[in-house]
Amino acid sequence: MDFKNWYEIKLKKIEEYLETYLPCCENRQKKIYESMRYSLNAGGKRIRPILMMAVFEIFRSYDEDSIMPFACALEMIHTYSLIHDDLPAMDDDDYRRGKLTNHKVYGEAMAILAGDGLLNKSVETVLQNRSLTGLSPEVILRCLEILMASSGTEGMIGGQVVDMFVEERSLEYLEYMHRLKTGALIRAACQIGATAGGASEEETYKITQYSDYLGLAFQIKDDILDVTAQESDLGKPTGSDEKNDKLTYVALLGLKESESLLQRYTGQAIESIKYLGDKSQRLVEIAEYLLERKK
Amino acid sequence: MDFKNWYEIKLKKIEEYLETYLPCCENRQKKIYESMRYSLNAGGKRIRPILMMAVFEIFRSYDEDSIMPFACALEMIHTYSLIHDDLPAMDDDDYRRGKLTNHKVYGEAMAILAGDGLLNKSVETVLQNRSLTGLSPEVILRCLEILMASSGTEGMIGGQVVDMFVEERSLEYLEYMHRLKTGALIRAACQIGATAGGASEEETYKITQYSDYLGLAFQIKDDILDVTAQESDLGKPTGSDEKNDKLTYVALLGLKESESLLQRYTGQAIESIKYLGDKSQRLVEIAEYLLERKK
Repeated sequence: MDFKNWYEIKLKKIEEYLETYLPCCENRQKKIYESMRYSLNAGGKRIRPILMMAVFEIFRSYDEDSIMPFACALEMIHTYSLIHDDLPAMDDDDYRRGKLTNHKVYGEAMAILAGDGLLNKSVETVLQNRSLTGLSPEVILRCLEILMASSGTEGMIGGQVVDMFVEERSLEYLEYMHRLKTGALIRAACQIGATAGGASEEETYKITQYSDYLGLAFQIKDDILDVTAQESDLGKPTGSDEKNDKLTYVALLGLKESESLLQRYTGQAIESIKYLGDKSQRLVEIAEYLLERKK
Repeated sequence: MDFKNWYEIKLKKIEEYLETYLPCCENRQKKIYESMRYSLNAGGKRIRPILMMAVFEIFRSYDEDSIMPFACALEMIHTYSLIHDDLPAMDDDDYRRGKLTNHKVYGEAMAILAGDGLLNKSVETVLQNRSLTGLSPEVILRCLEILMASSGTEGMIGGQVVDMFVEERSLEYLEYMHRLKTGALIRAACQIGATAGGASEEETYKITQYSDYLGLAFQIKDDILDVTAQESDLGKPTGSDEKNDKLTYVALLGLKESESLLQRYTGQAIESIKYLGDKSQRLVEIAEYLLERKK
C-alpha cells in the first residue's frame, strides 16, 4: 500500500476512535464536552498518534486497535496544550487550523476547563479501555508512565515554561526547549508504540533516536513554515513568531541554515532506523512526509 | 491515641511525602516548580488525603505508607483545581488560605501551567512510585481509574462547569453540582482507601455512602463559613459567595435550615458506617471534626 493510502486509513481510524472516546454528552455539563470536542475534532495532521501506530505496527500488525487508547490519549494531550497555549494570558491567538481558537468561541473560563478536561480525559481513556487492549496491567502502567512523563514539567509543560520565559538566545537553549516542548510527545509516541508492541531494548533505543531527530526536524519545519507558508495552508497568520519576537530556528540561524539543518536531522532520523530494514518503511515515509509538508 | 494527635501525625506524614514527591528543582523550568510548590505547600486541612489514609488504615494498618502516592496525588489535584478556580477568568480571587493566590504571585500564564503541571504530576506520582506501594498492577490501575474519573468532566471539572454556568436555583441542581464539584474527590478518597486496602464489596459500599453524605455536609459547612467565619480564620474574604451571587445552601435555604441540614447529613454519614463497629472510629471523628471546624 502506498503511503498516502496508508496514512488516510490510519487517519480515519483515529477520527473514529476519538469520536468513540469523547462522544457528545447531554447532561448539565454538556457545554464542556462541546468545547473539548470543538478543538479535538478540528482536524490536524494527527502526527503523534500516526507515529505511535506506525511503530506499534512494526511489532504487532495483527491487532493494531490495541494501541488506540494510547494513540487517542496522546492526541488529547496535544490538543489540550494548544487550547491553553492559545489563551490570552499565554500566546493570545485567535485562529488555529483555520478556525477560531477555543476561548474565542467558548470564553476563557471554559477554555481553561476544557484543557484541564482533555488532559484528565486522556488518562481516563487509557484506564477505561485498558481491558480491550489485551496488554498486561504492567505494560499499561509502563506506557502510561511514558505518556505522563512526556507531558509533564520535565516534558511538554516544562518546554512551554522555557519558551515563555526565554533566558538566552542560543542554539543550545533553543534545542533544550524543543526537546521538551515538541520533542517529548513525539518521543513518547514512538516509545509507547515500541513498549506496547514488545520491541527489544535495542529496537526501542534506535526508535527513540529516530524520534529525537524527528522531533527537532519537526520543529525546524514549523519555524520555517511560519515564515514561508501560505496563510490559507497554515490556517493561522504567518509571521507570528517574528511579531512576538519568539526564539526560533529561523530567528537564530536564518532561513537557509535552518533548511539545511532540517535536511540533516531528517537524514539522521532515517539513518537511526536503517537497522530495522524493511520494517522501517513507514517511519522513513513519515519523516519524508514531515520534511515536505506545506502546513 | 486521641483524634488530635492522630490527625497531626497524619498531617506531618502528608507534608513530608508532598515534599518528597515535588521537591525544588534547579533546571531551566525551575520557576514552575516554585509556583506549584507555592500552592501545594500553602497548608490547608489536607482532608482528602487524611480521609484516604483513615479508610486505608481500617484494612491495612501495618503498611500505611503504601497509600501515600495516591493520597498526595489527590491533594495535588485538589490544589491544581484551586489555582485554576482562582484565575481572573474564573473566580478572580486574590487570597487563599491567607496568602496571595498563585496568579497574583507568578502571573496568569504561570498559574495556568502550574495547574496543568500539578494535574499531570499527580498521575506521575502514582506511576513513578507504584513499585513501592506493594499493590498489584491491577489494583493500582483500578485506584487510578477512580482518581481520574473523580477529577474529570463527570466529576470535579464537571461540577466546576455546572457552578460557572448556573441554569437553575434549586436544591436538586445545587446538590447535583456539589456531588461533582466537592463530592467526587471526597468519594474518591474513601473509595481508593477501600480499594487499595482490600475492603469487601459491602464495606466499600458503606464507606462510599459515608463519603457521599460527608461530601455534602462538607460543602454546606463551607457555605455557612463563608457567611459566619472570621476572615482571619478563613484566610480569605468572607461574604464572597453573596457578592458573586453564587448558588449556595445559605442563599437557597437560609442559615438556620442549612445548619440543620448539615447536622442531618453528618448524622447520616456516621450512621452509614456503624456497620464497621470500632473500626469506624476515625471516620466518625473526621465527620465530627468537619462539622465543628472554624475554617
